[in-house]
Amino acid sequence: MSQLDVPVILGTARPGRRSEAVADLVVDMIKERGWLTDLVDVADYRLVATTSPGTGKDLDAYRERVAAADGFVIVAPEYNHGYPGELKLLLDSDSAGYRRKPVGLVGVSAGRLGGARMVEQLQNVVSALGMITAMPTVHVPEVQAALDANGQFASEGLAEVAARMLDAVGWYAEALGR
Amino acid sequence: MSQLDVPVILGTARPGRRSEAVADLVVDMIKERGWLTDLVDVADYRLVATTSPGTGKDLDAYRERVAAADGFVIVAPEYNHGYPGELKLLLDSDSAGYRRKPVGLVGVSAGRLGGARMVEQLQNVVSALGMITAMPTVHVPEVQAALDANGQFASEGLAEVAARMLDAVGWYAEALGR
Amino acid sequence: MSQLDVPVILGTARPGRRSEAVADLVVDMIKERGWLTDLVDVADYRLVATTSPGTGKDLDAYRERVAAADGFVIVAPEYNHGYPGELKLLLDSDSAGYRRKPVGLVGVSAGRLGGARMVEQLQNVVSALGMITAMPTVHVPEVQAALDANGQFASEGLAEVAARMLDAVGWYAEALGR
Amino acid sequence: MSQLDVPVILGTARPGRRSEAVADLVVDMIKERGWLTDLVDVADYRLVATTSPGTGKDLDAYRERVAAADGFVIVAPEYNHGYPGELKLLLDSDSAGYRRKPVGLVGVSAGRLGGARMVEQLQNVVSALGMITAMPTVHVPEVQAALDANGQFASEGLAEVAARMLDAVGWYAEALGR
Repeated sequence: MSQLDVPVILGTARPGRRSEAVADLVVDMIKERGWLTDLVDVADYRLVATTSPGTGKDLDAYRERVAAADGFVIVAPEYNHGYPGELKLLLDSDSAGYRRKPVGLVGVSAGRLGGARMVEQLQNVVSALGMITAMPTVHVPEVQAALDANGQFASEGLAEVAARMLDAVGWYAEALGR
Repeated sequence: MSQLDVPVILGTARPGRRSEAVADLVVDMIKERGWLTDLVDVADYRLVATTSPGTGKDLDAYRERVAAADGFVIVAPEYNHGYPGELKLLLDSDSAGYRRKPVGLVGVSAGRLGGARMVEQLQNVVSALGMITAMPTVHVPEVQAALDANGQFASEGLAEVAARMLDAVGWYAEALGR
Repeated sequence: MSQLDVPVILGTARPGRRSEAVADLVVDMIKERGWLTDLVDVADYRLVATTSPGTGKDLDAYRERVAAADGFVIVAPEYNHGYPGELKLLLDSDSAGYRRKPVGLVGVSAGRLGGARMVEQLQNVVSALGMITAMPTVHVPEVQAALDANGQFASEGLAEVAARMLDAVGWYAEALGR
Repeated sequence: MSQLDVPVILGTARPGRRSEAVADLVVDMIKERGWLTDLVDVADYRLVATTSPGTGKDLDAYRERVAAADGFVIVAPEYNHGYPGELKLLLDSDSAGYRRKPVGLVGVSAGRLGGARMVEQLQNVVSALGMITAMPTVHVPEVQAALDANGQFASEGLAEVAARMLDAVGWYAEALGR
């Protein structure tokens, strides 16, 4: 297979969102591997209803981006034990392009649990969409202190788990993309 | 306690949504009990980001409606095994008003499973918001044929389960609202 | 209402289980409130099949204990993101006695996430059994270091969350037990 | 790859279990494809505690069977919205052998929902164990009438979904087993 293409979906448009810095870091980590990537920012789409165009970026662009990808990483915070509504609106706007592609899931929270509950719910959704979850999942607790001044994970353990998640995304993308 | 007040939240703004007729029926069923109710339509709010005002109805009106209620019914379809994004955006826009109030959950689907998976995910979310689920939950499969010409449940069994759900909402609202 | 009766169900029989010390602590916390309680230890029942008697303690004793209670606390570890099988076997051995009673959920883990995913799955099960979850749920991470030499929570924050959970169990038990 | 090996795990030991006939049918469907298979019956193991040997079949035999397999099908009923405890005890008794292998999930119920909620919970567990869910999942409602006199699915739709599930298990097993 030629160069892998793994976009990062940032799943919150909340004002002041801290997940953005985590998503930027994951984009950098993917680039360092020599893969293609870019940030798919849910805030660009401005959707207000399921399967209905929003007032932002065109959904055809999203569907084409999804179709071209070999795999995905989704970075999203947990709100009230679930996923952000804007992320679900975006994911539900396509059905064909996700099939049999791996996805890495990165949960983010201000508290101690690193979005663990959101990730479980999201896992059922991405499975319904035909994706497979690349284990391990990544959990970023206390996001306000999770990155150092250089935008790297302050915790070595977390950096290592994120690397293993990307290894798994790459492994599945290679194996399934033949 | 005086007259119970149990609004019905319609959780999808999808064009052509069939859940609307089910929500209308639940409003009628509640009125027949002599309770206060009205339809809270997620389509009115036009939210595009968590905890951010939309371009539709004011969120303060939503929060006041929630605060005034003794309990809730949520009617929503299942999309890709989860809840509609627009519903999550609306639910996440309040935190105080739901506490220790019962909620009846009505899942809707075009297929055979009546939104069973969506209801389980939603149960974790409403619990995080402080609500308690009034059992039984209601599952409306094959929604295109679920209502008869008079807008009533075509299935007697379904009408009976919906009545028991409302009994439970009322029982909890009375017990907890002292 | 007279004295509340809130047994603590210890949900693992795994050799070397660390949840036992947490369950003992919760029993002590309940006794300090002047409520009735005791430890219901899943290890006593030795069940090997759903709705089938085991080779241990009689299930009628379990069902009578459940019927007499005003509420429950379940303390259990997370195994592979779910609840222990032995706990599910015990919970499934009754259907009548749980109805409309509150339950406090305490997740335990060796890792950082405090059984958060197990608690969400368990919440759907206890709801199906007719119980209501008393929020907040309690999450004990790194259980090997969670208790001090006196068997108390080493973290003040954790002790405070556990107290609020018991407050909620008591509040619901009083409100619903009329 | 040589002949695929896909055992079927029957996940309930409940007296009178109806899932057994469904599991037998899936074994037959796999044999018709020319794959290796056999029935792994949870009832043989008689486990009473997580990670502890039972009084039945040796767990080493289970772990060897899992290690040898290219993929799995799990057939199990839904009890109180969750998976059977005996199934969880068996699954938790191994950790190494499941990794990066596909699993087909077949939910069974006496009611209308075909174990849909159990399948979602189980999906999070098998993912934690390193398996990937082969979509579509299969849902057998009203199991007492689901099979005809020849032990085949009475519903053509159900037979077709089961075949597509096996197609997906086979596709993933081929792709990942190189």
